[in-house]
Amino acid sequence: MGVASVSSGEFDLISRYFAPLSSKGPPAYALTDDGAVLSPPAGHDLVFTKDALVADVHFFAGDAPDLIARKAMRVNLSDLAAMGATPLGYLLALALPKNMENIDQWLADFSAGLGRDQVEFGCSLFGGDTVSTNGPMVISLTAIGSVEKGKALRRRGAQVGDGIYVSGTLGDAALGLKSLSGEAGPPDETLIDRYHLPRPRLELGQKLYGIASAVLDISDGLAGDIGHICDLPGSQSALGAEITADLIPLSGAAGKLLESFPAYKNLIWNGGDDYELLFTAPDHMADKLASLAGELDLPLTRIGRITDNPLITIQGRSGENLMKNEQGFRHF
Amino acid sequence: MGVASVSSGEFDLISRYFAPLSSKGPPAYALTDDGAVLSPPAGHDLVFTKDALVADVHFFAGDAPDLIARKAMRVNLSDLAAMGATPLGYLLALALPKNMENIDQWLADFSAGLGRDQVEFGCSLFGGDTVSTNGPMVISLTAIGSVEKGKALRRRGAQVGDGIYVSGTLGDAALGLKSLSGEAGPPDETLIDRYHLPRPRLELGQKLYGIASAVLDISDGLAGDIGHICDLPGSQSALGAEITADLIPLSGAAGKLLESFPAYKNLIWNGGDDYELLFTAPDHMADKLASLAGELDLPLTRIGRITDNPLITIQGRSGENLMKNEQGFRHF
Repeated sequence: MGVASVSSGEFDLISRYFAPLSSKGPPAYALTDDGAVLSPPAGHDLVFTKDALVADVHFFAGDAPDLIARKAMRVNLSDLAAMGATPLGYLLALALPKNMENIDQWLADFSAGLGRDQVEFGCSLFGGDTVSTNGPMVISLTAIGSVEKGKALRRRGAQVGDGIYVSGTLGDAALGLKSLSGEAGPPDETLIDRYHLPRPRLELGQKLYGIASAVLDISDGLAGDIGHICDLPGSQSALGAEITADLIPLSGAAGKLLESFPAYKNLIWNGGDDYELLFTAPDHMADKLASLAGELDLPLTRIGRITDNPLITIQGRSGENLMKNEQGFRHF
Repeated sequence: MGVASVSSGEFDLISRYFAPLSSKGPPAYALTDDGAVLSPPAGHDLVFTKDALVADVHFFAGDAPDLIARKAMRVNLSDLAAMGATPLGYLLALALPKNMENIDQWLADFSAGLGRDQVEFGCSLFGGDTVSTNGPMVISLTAIGSVEKGKALRRRGAQVGDGIYVSGTLGDAALGLKSLSGEAGPPDETLIDRYHLPRPRLELGQKLYGIASAVLDISDGLAGDIGHICDLPGSQSALGAEITADLIPLSGAAGKLLESFPAYKNLIWNGGDDYELLFTAPDHMADKLASLAGELDLPLTRIGRITDNPLITIQGRSGENLMKNEQGFRHF
């Protein structure tokens, strides 16, 4: 009991693998202080988000360490994207299983993954903590971003009649997990890659202020997450959503897998782990969204509309609600 | 796999127990958005720190939930204190064991503990995540504070000849843990309370700028933590510390326990969990420190001095080094 380290060599581990991910000067001072000190960029608000991942719940303990690291980073950056923020840095808590084998190599690979994504997304390590646990690994990451003052995107703001849009394609990660588990024929590397490596839509989020009326990122699945836009706690009137299943954008790989395994179709809207942006916008923004899609080379697809009937439906070709066991499903 | 919640009722839990700990408006928007949005206070830097706690490593799984919550909060606030910062808020990740009994009552008590300390220390919940684990509970907390621009305290800055000071009394928490474990006679509630509830020295930290040359909080123990002040990575010259054991301030309860259990004396300097501030200051600051101690009603005791000999010694009455098994001990 008392304060515990991974080993007596915790300080070695920190300096070897994590200090190089931090700044020598402010804000992180090479992790040699009790905290990081950030001078916030002028005219900006700061955005904070925190997601935790548990081994064999959110990732497989045996996954490649660099992929685990990048997933932990990216699910948090996806939240920043949904707020319209630009990443600045992150803090990392790592609870490592006692007696982990090859811990040095694991940490070398894990930190290399973080380093790679830091370069890609323009952020650095502000600080953190490394502890040991008798249980599975737990990774907790706090991401910090900045957004022009008053211009953070919100989940609140959708109006009746607004179109419902998603970025990219849905279902790839959930089908990738099926593929990885051997439950969907020969492994499809494209889909498995989408499961391992979310694509935080940061550039898109940074351009949606003034266009979208409400924004979030899809982590639990389209059907559940649209509910957060429709019925926010404390909102005056509950909204509904009518989504047309055939309009939900699929990747070529997802379409092909579903031809052989049609029973997995519902994973498109309730599989989760998509980390695409889900947003609403009034119809007069359609042209702006079309040019934005071109500019970003990223599909932005209108899949339905917000209604004043507080139900969420995913409609099939005959207008039937495809959420069969969840008729009139409301996630909340 | 995929996204996992504690239960299908995660949103209920969040709204019932955690949303009331957050602000209705900015920064937290009652936890209904993907992140918190903070307008940083003008003329201030922000300070970030993150400490994780694991059940049966940093606390006992059966400890009172409100005490666990407050300890998780306070060890982080102690880091803010060591930086001279004023708390603003925190993000919390909670990995809860699957099939935890009485989870509702546990969360009610846990969140009540957080709420109590929020009031005491003037901060609120900015966001977080709740996940489930097959292992012991893991609590990861990120604390955010503010400090006047450029006035954050640092570990770096001690000079040869500076006095070494500590706030409060040392060893209480470590002896409290012995007392709690039944290894030190009848339970001493004063010491046990110090083990459960660190006192983050925020007011002191906020007044040390311009007085102290280097500051940190003692979490691993005096003997180890003074090493962080003496030999920072990348510093030009390593310093040493000469500490006089008899000068280390003890509480009445600690002194009494040590009379019966003198073998525990070394816990005073290597037991850890003190969460007092350890700092250095040039001798001409002695008067200022004396008045500060009076103003805060908090002992600030000079226990030794910084030397140019890169050794850390805790000297007994005959000048012998009491760190017997750690002769010339250097923590790094």
